[in-house]
Amino acid sequence: MIDRRDVEHAAARIAGRVRRTPVMEVDSSLLGAPTILKLELLQRTGSFKVRGAFNRILSAERSATGVIAASGGNHGLGTAHAARALGLRAEIFVPESSPTVKVERLRALGAHVTIAGAFYADAYQASAARAAVTGALVVHAYDQLEVAAGQGTLALELEQQAGALDTVLVPVGGGGLVAGIAAALESRCQVVAVEPERISTLHSALAADRPVDVPVAGLAADSLGARRIGQVCFAIAKRTGMRSVLVPDDAIATARRLLWDELRVTAEHGGATALAALLCGAYEPAAGERLAVVISGGNTDPGTLVAPKPTADSSGMVQDAPPGAPVGVAEQSA
Amino acid sequence: MIDRRDVEHAAARIAGRVRRTPVMEVDSSLLGAPTILKLELLQRTGSFKVRGAFNRILSAERSATGVIAASGGNHGLGTAHAARALGLRAEIFVPESSPTVKVERLRALGAHVTIAGAFYADAYQASAARAAVTGALVVHAYDQLEVAAGQGTLALELEQQAGALDTVLVPVGGGGLVAGIAAALESRCQVVAVEPERISTLHSALAADRPVDVPVAGLAADSLGARRIGQVCFAIAKRTGMRSVLVPDDAIATARRLLWDELRVTAEHGGATALAALLCGAYEPAAGERLAVVISGGNTDPGTLVAPKPTADSSGMVQDAPPGAPVGVAEQSA
Repeated sequence: MIDRRDVEHAAARIAGRVRRTPVMEVDSSLLGAPTILKLELLQRTGSFKVRGAFNRILSAERSATGVIAASGGNHGLGTAHAARALGLRAEIFVPESSPTVKVERLRALGAHVTIAGAFYADAYQASAARAAVTGALVVHAYDQLEVAAGQGTLALELEQQAGALDTVLVPVGGGGLVAGIAAALESRCQVVAVEPERISTLHSALAADRPVDVPVAGLAADSLGARRIGQVCFAIAKRTGMRSVLVPDDAIATARRLLWDELRVTAEHGGATALAALLCGAYEPAAGERLAVVISGGNTDPGTLVAPKPTADSSGMVQDAPPGAPVGVAEQSA
Repeated sequence: MIDRRDVEHAAARIAGRVRRTPVMEVDSSLLGAPTILKLELLQRTGSFKVRGAFNRILSAERSATGVIAASGGNHGLGTAHAARALGLRAEIFVPESSPTVKVERLRALGAHVTIAGAFYADAYQASAARAAVTGALVVHAYDQLEVAAGQGTLALELEQQAGALDTVLVPVGGGGLVAGIAAALESRCQVVAVEPERISTLHSALAADRPVDVPVAGLAADSLGARRIGQVCFAIAKRTGMRSVLVPDDAIATARRLLWDELRVTAEHGGATALAALLCGAYEPAAGERLAVVISGGNTDPGTLVAPKPTADSSGMVQDAPPGAPVGVAEQSA
């Protein structure tokens, strides 16, 4: 199992290959408590996934036959990017349900895409079978120690940027990100897992005291849609006494909307899920608590953010004037 | 005229009222040279304008009759926000050409909106006449010392965040932002003004050795659409030997697109204008130069960022799956 030293080693291993994503402190008028946002959606490929992919690949003896992963989403993008950056061939298996735009994006990153089966489970099985033949390195989306340790490097950065923290809220699907963060921050800071009510992988596992299958549905399914928590995450959650809180889809939608309306941050639903816990009261910080929230991904269609309703405390989404619209003197200029 | 001390005083005056916006370092693979982006679009109301508005209002003896400004854009939002935060009445004059959404946004911020005349020049005249009657404090969009000093506080933050710099690229319309930044960084760092070719206020003024009227057109007109450079900016540009470079609209569009595709940053066209200078070669950094670029605003319609073409080095805009779309096991989860 991994601990902070593994995460520190991962950070040294992937240094210079991932972005140091910015943090932003937001005052209490917006979220009810002063909050530090870790803007990991600004990471290469739009999510934290490159951290784990680089660490997994760089930890292994390199295989001449490249790397392999199953995912039509963030993990596929992260793995494809890391493989190309390291000069390795990447094979990505996606289910037939993957939108064409995602397949094209993977191909634009140089990946060899194989469409296999109706669902991700089928694509994963096909990828594993292929890896057994080719000897390519399997990069799992969350349930490998090196992957989790790589994701945890986000927490080391966050500590450097924000100083000592009391609590970090982290979104959870299969649990690779929260596992790495909890390993990095164990006994230094409370790490709270935030899950959609409709994909309660960790919450259900903690209740049953073992990983169990859960239904997968709702707004965040495209990025947090795990059927079962990973073994790596479950073990670290037990070891560290991790708490899991659940949030409804409407809070996730509100959080994503608020990030755009008030902060011009374009999170995907899964990326806004940890913030939802603050908005709906699933997590209530104590007075004076030093709190950070991970905004984990931004692979979203920005068109879905158009035309919000003005809110009483809005900072103002304003549509551009049409190009060439008449503009007089410069009372609105920089 | 203002200098660094005025900007330092402004920073003390507005402390806690504006956000410390994050910076982000981007490596040379993306922009050809390592570059620090100052993400000022994440500022309250979506642009730097609140800095100057707060400083102007807090520098003045407060008027019981409130503040007044003319703008249907970022300056109006910034002034309305600052006034409300300080418990003052704000009157904002906008031309008839202002889109309804902008007027609604101003009203949502508590401003009293008056629609006056066909163009901004008319709205400005009407606001000045009204101020003469009411005694309200006029907050100019760029051509007041306190406004420019307030905008310059961005540069003090940037120095603290990024350390010593060789060059900062700043977008220019009426020049309030670049004037404040140049005052703050005089003799410490080169400040380069970047202007759209189709709104060359400073470039034309430097060529004529006095502010002159210029045509206003093109993609960035809604945020950089000044007819003439401000006196404050012109004086500081002369004093500091400021260089101005021009960028074509297609480079501005490319810069805005790149900010979204590669960084998940949603800039408005004016906000992406300084970056355009790097992309089109209007500014070419020397080897090893420590370079920062101000991304000044994000009041844009995110719907215009939908469906980019995949690029060879893209980090992947991926559209969400429809809510409830089938998702199998968790090979793409956090």
